[in-house]
Amino acid sequence: MPMAMKEDLNKDTSISTQRNIIMKKLGKLPNSICINIWKVGRDDPRRVIHALKVGLALTLVSFLYLLEPLFEGVGQNAMWAVITVVVVLEFTAGATLCKGLNRGLGTLCAVSLAFFIEFMAEETGRAFHAVFIGASVFLVGFSSTYLRFFPSIKKNYDYGVVIFLLTFNLITVSSYRVQNVLRMARERLYTIAIGCGICLLMSLLIFPNWSGEHLESSTARKFEILAKSIEDSVNEYFHGKDEKIGEDDSEDPTYNGYRAVLDSKSSDETLATFASWEPRPTRHCHKYPWKQYVKLGAVLRHFGYTAVALHGCLHSEIKAPKGVRLLFRDPCMRVASEVSKVLVELASSITTHRQFSHEALSDHLHEALRDLNSAIKSHPRLFLGSKNARKVAALKHEKEISSSVTLPSLKTDSSVLLQWKRSRVANQPKETNEQKQLRPTLSKIAITSLEFSEALPFAAFASLLVEIAAKLEVVIEEVEELGRAAYFRESTDRDDISIKINIENKRRNVNDLHAHEVHQIAD
Amino acid sequence: MPMAMKEDLNKDTSISTQRNIIMKKLGKLPNSICINIWKVGRDDPRRVIHALKVGLALTLVSFLYLLEPLFEGVGQNAMWAVITVVVVLEFTAGATLCKGLNRGLGTLCAVSLAFFIEFMAEETGRAFHAVFIGASVFLVGFSSTYLRFFPSIKKNYDYGVVIFLLTFNLITVSSYRVQNVLRMARERLYTIAIGCGICLLMSLLIFPNWSGEHLESSTARKFEILAKSIEDSVNEYFHGKDEKIGEDDSEDPTYNGYRAVLDSKSSDETLATFASWEPRPTRHCHKYPWKQYVKLGAVLRHFGYTAVALHGCLHSEIKAPKGVRLLFRDPCMRVASEVSKVLVELASSITTHRQFSHEALSDHLHEALRDLNSAIKSHPRLFLGSKNARKVAALKHEKEISSSVTLPSLKTDSSVLLQWKRSRVANQPKETNEQKQLRPTLSKIAITSLEFSEALPFAAFASLLVEIAAKLEVVIEEVEELGRAAYFRESTDRDDISIKINIENKRRNVNDLHAHEVHQIAD
Repeated sequence: MPMAMKEDLNKDTSISTQRNIIMKKLGKLPNSICINIWKVGRDDPRRVIHALKVGLALTLVSFLYLLEPLFEGVGQNAMWAVITVVVVLEFTAGATLCKGLNRGLGTLCAVSLAFFIEFMAEETGRAFHAVFIGASVFLVGFSSTYLRFFPSIKKNYDYGVVIFLLTFNLITVSSYRVQNVLRMARERLYTIAIGCGICLLMSLLIFPNWSGEHLESSTARKFEILAKSIEDSVNEYFHGKDEKIGEDDSEDPTYNGYRAVLDSKSSDETLATFASWEPRPTRHCHKYPWKQYVKLGAVLRHFGYTAVALHGCLHSEIKAPKGVRLLFRDPCMRVASEVSKVLVELASSITTHRQFSHEALSDHLHEALRDLNSAIKSHPRLFLGSKNARKVAALKHEKEISSSVTLPSLKTDSSVLLQWKRSRVANQPKETNEQKQLRPTLSKIAITSLEFSEALPFAAFASLLVEIAAKLEVVIEEVEELGRAAYFRESTDRDDISIKINIENKRRNVNDLHAHEVHQIAD
Repeated sequence: MPMAMKEDLNKDTSISTQRNIIMKKLGKLPNSICINIWKVGRDDPRRVIHALKVGLALTLVSFLYLLEPLFEGVGQNAMWAVITVVVVLEFTAGATLCKGLNRGLGTLCAVSLAFFIEFMAEETGRAFHAVFIGASVFLVGFSSTYLRFFPSIKKNYDYGVVIFLLTFNLITVSSYRVQNVLRMARERLYTIAIGCGICLLMSLLIFPNWSGEHLESSTARKFEILAKSIEDSVNEYFHGKDEKIGEDDSEDPTYNGYRAVLDSKSSDETLATFASWEPRPTRHCHKYPWKQYVKLGAVLRHFGYTAVALHGCLHSEIKAPKGVRLLFRDPCMRVASEVSKVLVELASSITTHRQFSHEALSDHLHEALRDLNSAIKSHPRLFLGSKNARKVAALKHEKEISSSVTLPSLKTDSSVLLQWKRSRVANQPKETNEQKQLRPTLSKIAITSLEFSEALPFAAFASLLVEIAAKLEVVIEEVEELGRAAYFRESTDRDDISIKINIENKRRNVNDLHAHEVHQIAD
């Protein structure tokens, strides 16, 4: 076979292979779209329900056009009802109420002001009338836009100001051309009221989604995620998964858990704002303390910073002597498990609306802390204790040195970083330019891989663990305050038993935590 | 004077005092409102400019009604231009472009689909026509609401889908009553185009606010805040402000600085989304890597978690011996000051769009780390070094014990917590009920104020400081990657000098950091 023919054949084959690949990809596209559609619904079935509700509301409002008697009543103004439904009907009841009431209030204010200005301008001539309208449009536009920058307005009434501006402009400007503005405004108000009515009906009465409930459950969920993450971090520290060295933090499920808690500020605040618009039947006829949840979220984030620093020890600790870790494994793990238990109990207190007994909650934790304390004190070879203790420990020390298999000197983070960079460079063999840029950095780091005392990182770990336990007190305080503000029920003995069973179940569930649940909170 | 009269007189006096107080408060009200109005404008003068722009745009668009020839051209449809201006004109150019293009695209898609359905329904009878319209309204309403839950749609096209739904419903439903729907739709498109045109003119050409610039400057500002906060934390650790014990964290400016950085996720993401809509002239005709800024923000938050944990040491450390702290003050403070210098240089690299030399940046830092290392090694009485080192240090040890005035035993956080609680309880003398609830907790804490080894908290502090330095490498890497992706200029020697002068000025400015700037980033 001649060379040219062979090449042609090769070309043909490669083209047909490429075509096959593209065809296969195209063939898979509808499949992947279907999977995506299914996934969005499965992650939160309320989304499907909400979409159905919107469809239904729109069909209802379109009857204003489709049914003869209704259309005769409202006429072309029916379009304002349609606009209202599309814009106001939101996912949660609180958001819908906030938007609906803002829309109503904004329209009312705008109509009043527009009529006042209309009344002032009527007396003047036609040309002056136009100038008057132009000036008032500018002034109202300027001042209401400026008003939107005030934090208190922005938080609750931003949409209302927009609607005020919109309606005011439409009425004022069209009053120059339309004769019967009063009738127009009245009919518009009616149809907007019809639209708002349909929205409120849909969102408050048919499968309502309450922002408040969502805020409560996401707060409880954050406690559970923290509980699991802290236990996991400490477990990993002592039982280590060495294959994780150099792995990117962003794929670490424990770190993602922390992130979901630490990045939840804006979603918490939005939920609390909407929740404050929701009616909530309470036993004591008080305003439900949603702000307290935001405050609790801030305290929890503060707590989380320490927990995530503890997690950071996993990655700076890899070369630390196993012997040191083994000495304190049991007391440390007990403290972590007690902290985690307390967090799960707090979560259950929030979901069940029951107060808890502070003593029962932290009794075991304090015991575990005392154990850790005496464990550390009994090994003064690592941390300076009293003079006597050191002498006593001298004998022990000799023994342990010989019994622990390896006590290599400890290096700081830098060596881990070095490994990580090497693996990164190895993964990107083509970027020779970048490699060149990296090399001086690497040598620099190699020089500075200092050999700090081996007790340093473990001391940091233990100290952070103790600090977590101490900060937990502040979290408990905050949940207690929430319990008082929201009038949580006093817990009885019978409750305690059922709560304990619940907690055991929860702990089992928490262990099956799916990644998408972590994401959901972060959303 | 009889008793009753005296009481009456007292009553009268108290009423008149109250009245006076209320009158005074009312008198001050306009004053405080004025101060508030002034403050909102002074914090960010662009707000005033934006409000003026909105006023101007609305006046311009109202000419469609006010000027005879223009009104003859568009008629009542002019109202769509007014609506568009009110809704689309946003604070930044990116947000306006995003909304304007979404509005245009959504309207176009909706008009096309509406005509297709109109064409399908025309053939059928009147009654079936109505049913057909109702069904299509329901289906389109359901599917587009469901579409809004897809993360990729939600991020960039949420507003477009809402407008699509709105326009589709208005056209489809009114096509049942209005004969010339085609003309109506065309005129509506024209007027929406006029409205969008005015908005784009206003936001792109007249004093534009670019989201991209805001993202860049807020990223640089975060570096500066971190630099200052880390230096402050370490300073406070060694020079201590004891009057701060028990103070609420929320009023601590250093902690507020950290919070501004750690809570910036959602504002970063919003800015990056809008920035990606903005046109940006670049030398290399590439897409500007806004996503890289979001990634850098995530890395910076990760870095910040360690820094805030370091800050946490201030509050858990109060009873730690001053002697221990004094030993390591100088090397620790040098490390902190080098870290802070690197951060300020990185900030300057981002604002001036210049690459930096990695070596020059971290040379001094590595030196400082080595010094800290040798300082820690030379005091094995605190951290276990080699056997020999311990023997050598034995003599030193005796001396230091006698020379350091006090080496009190160290207590954990609990004792601080105890003090804090006491001060809280003292501040709320009336809440006897709460006091009762607190008492058992207090005793519990007092029992568990364990006496951990005195080296523990300092080891944690030093270890966190070293970890900060190590994590700084990752931050430097990320800024380098940003520099490559955004084609930062290579720095020349001349630049280096001017940058250094700049940095010195910056460092001085950073020290005058106002609280409201911290807030601005957090917004």
